[in-house]
Amino acid sequence: MARIVMKFGGTSVGDCDRIKNVARRVKAEVDRGNEVAVVVSAMSGVTNQLVDYCKQIAPLHDAREYDTVVSTGEQVTIGLLSIALQELGVQARSWMGWQIPIRSDGAHGKARIETIETTELERRMASGQVAVVAGFQGLGPDNRVTTLGRGGSDTSAVALAAAVHADRCDIYTDVDGVYTTDPRIVAKARKLDKITYEEMLELASLGAKVLQTRSVEMAMKHRVRVQVLSSFVDAPGTLVCDEEEIVEKELVSGIAYSRDEAKITLVRVADRPGVAAAIFGPLADANVNVDMIVQNVSEDGKHTDLTFTVAKSDLDRATKVLNERQGSLGYERLVPDSNVVKISVIGVGMRSHAGVAQKMFSTLADKAINIQVITTSEIKVSVLVAEEYTELALRALHSAYGLDA
Amino acid sequence: MARIVMKFGGTSVGDCDRIKNVARRVKAEVDRGNEVAVVVSAMSGVTNQLVDYCKQIAPLHDAREYDTVVSTGEQVTIGLLSIALQELGVQARSWMGWQIPIRSDGAHGKARIETIETTELERRMASGQVAVVAGFQGLGPDNRVTTLGRGGSDTSAVALAAAVHADRCDIYTDVDGVYTTDPRIVAKARKLDKITYEEMLELASLGAKVLQTRSVEMAMKHRVRVQVLSSFVDAPGTLVCDEEEIVEKELVSGIAYSRDEAKITLVRVADRPGVAAAIFGPLADANVNVDMIVQNVSEDGKHTDLTFTVAKSDLDRATKVLNERQGSLGYERLVPDSNVVKISVIGVGMRSHAGVAQKMFSTLADKAINIQVITTSEIKVSVLVAEEYTELALRALHSAYGLDA
Repeated sequence: MARIVMKFGGTSVGDCDRIKNVARRVKAEVDRGNEVAVVVSAMSGVTNQLVDYCKQIAPLHDAREYDTVVSTGEQVTIGLLSIALQELGVQARSWMGWQIPIRSDGAHGKARIETIETTELERRMASGQVAVVAGFQGLGPDNRVTTLGRGGSDTSAVALAAAVHADRCDIYTDVDGVYTTDPRIVAKARKLDKITYEEMLELASLGAKVLQTRSVEMAMKHRVRVQVLSSFVDAPGTLVCDEEEIVEKELVSGIAYSRDEAKITLVRVADRPGVAAAIFGPLADANVNVDMIVQNVSEDGKHTDLTFTVAKSDLDRATKVLNERQGSLGYERLVPDSNVVKISVIGVGMRSHAGVAQKMFSTLADKAINIQVITTSEIKVSVLVAEEYTELALRALHSAYGLDA
Repeated sequence: MARIVMKFGGTSVGDCDRIKNVARRVKAEVDRGNEVAVVVSAMSGVTNQLVDYCKQIAPLHDAREYDTVVSTGEQVTIGLLSIALQELGVQARSWMGWQIPIRSDGAHGKARIETIETTELERRMASGQVAVVAGFQGLGPDNRVTTLGRGGSDTSAVALAAAVHADRCDIYTDVDGVYTTDPRIVAKARKLDKITYEEMLELASLGAKVLQTRSVEMAMKHRVRVQVLSSFVDAPGTLVCDEEEIVEKELVSGIAYSRDEAKITLVRVADRPGVAAAIFGPLADANVNVDMIVQNVSEDGKHTDLTFTVAKSDLDRATKVLNERQGSLGYERLVPDSNVVKISVIGVGMRSHAGVAQKMFSTLADKAINIQVITTSEIKVSVLVAEEYTELALRALHSAYGLDA
């Protein structure tokens, strides 16, 4: 007997038939003798509709009331799934965040889970009752409903799995696991059986949209074994786990890409102490996150070129902030470029093997792809290249690292 | 300064523009210096959609989970209305049943409100914050959301008005008040300025769909002054109040009709003790409510004809229950008839004036309308006639009692 937390996203519970299908999957887990809690999202499209209502009433709206409105989507799903389970003869009961309670901080609209009171839940799970828990929501210190931000249901599931000491947290989604790269672009992409927390975290933050970054952080912190699998296909997925659980480690586990970045180059910035702070301070104040940064060697000892990337959606704001300060910053020109893609090679094997970065650079050079910016960390190398090379670069790298199926 | 509870139904909050319109009406009340609480229903159509989801998943479903699902409709509206009020510069905060809490009994799907904790609400109302309260819902003894049954938002509003000792409970709806009869049928129908609780209760239970019966009972019990008025037209409505508040009492205040009844006649039932119990017992067991009952005088001392009415929706079930027992009940034939209408004349003036019933009978006789069944109470006379006479009977009675505008 194991204790399992299952999580189903919006497409998996998109209509009544799909909810019935989810109920059958949950029943199968119960029939195996397991104790089960299920975390669900809102039916697909519902949250967007609710967000749209809020915006229609007032573009800038109170986050408390926004949370009151949008948290209803998950509430509908837990009730319907409980009914579907009972119809199959499975004992089930729905739980909203405030009923458990799942206590969060008071950051309405993007709250963080602090504690989950599990005594009653665990008692019922042990007696054979499936706990059907609303994802994405908590109870704030002011006794009001909070939401965790978009994609928060993954985090709810992992947090619940940690709190009830689940043997596994199964995240059912519309893909059947984590792939070496995007199979829509690289036909030879392979599904991974296992991947480490660290790699998954890099993949998630570097553009792979399988799991929400915060949920992977939480899984890593609490050592929750997370399985990503399909709610439509009956097959094992990818297990996100400790490095120790993975016997055959690959040098590189995956190749991610993100088209969500844009590049800004400041030409002929004064090369003196404090300039970087003068540039990135105002951007931070304007809530613009800066990702990759490269500063060229100064040729004349007085000026340098500075290149960095921001989220594509922040490009206009960043440009505006910097243009307003052109006088004090003293740069010659600002060159924005949104036709870029960030490609990242990820693998814990890099820690112990040299040459991973070199192979990336030579592979891209062989295809005449110019690298604009490079950043590295212990387990990943990211490069920025022109967006038109996305497919070519991904396929070449996938082959070069021996990942092809 | 007064303390006002305002209630808006589903059509009044049917879309974002209408919610903004409701916010303007609430603001007007606040601008008059009043302390205000608002009770709202779900946006029109939403509750039906949610009920339909539950039925799609399982025709017979757990009432607890049904309540979890359908109570979300009001939750959406309170959040949106709070945002709309804040957008107009009015302080507002939404409240779900469990947050106040509005404690109910545990009869999920048709719960009754038991207590409302108002300390925090009243503190905030006194400080100028509008309390936006979800109608139709409460918190059961098991810490789960309950719903009060269809139309329950009227009851929520009156209960809240009683609990906060409101000076008035304004029920905004899609009609502009209580009429002497249905103005769609009788063009000369008049809007009443005032009506007594007793009369409103009879009107509500006899077919007028302006207010939910239970809300009128509650208003009468707690002496809550209820005003029925239009959310689209800016004009005073009808005040439901104590008899003492009404200076010019009419003999008859209104004429109601209901097409929701069906008649059953059992021909040649054995005329012996215990037969009525043998007939109505099984009907009660099958949850069939019997309304009017007439037993004819026995001609031969052995047999009699028994006629009674049930809800039209219960006719098939009632027929089945009785047919299964034809042997033991020993009646000759069962004659069902759903082409009937119940017409009722209502007025507290009847208590002190004779001849009201007689005028009804003679008016109908003048039009050659045959009366099939009669029942009376202290303040009403109801007759059952063939449905085709509905309009003719209503117009004739409306004139006969001097109600024409």
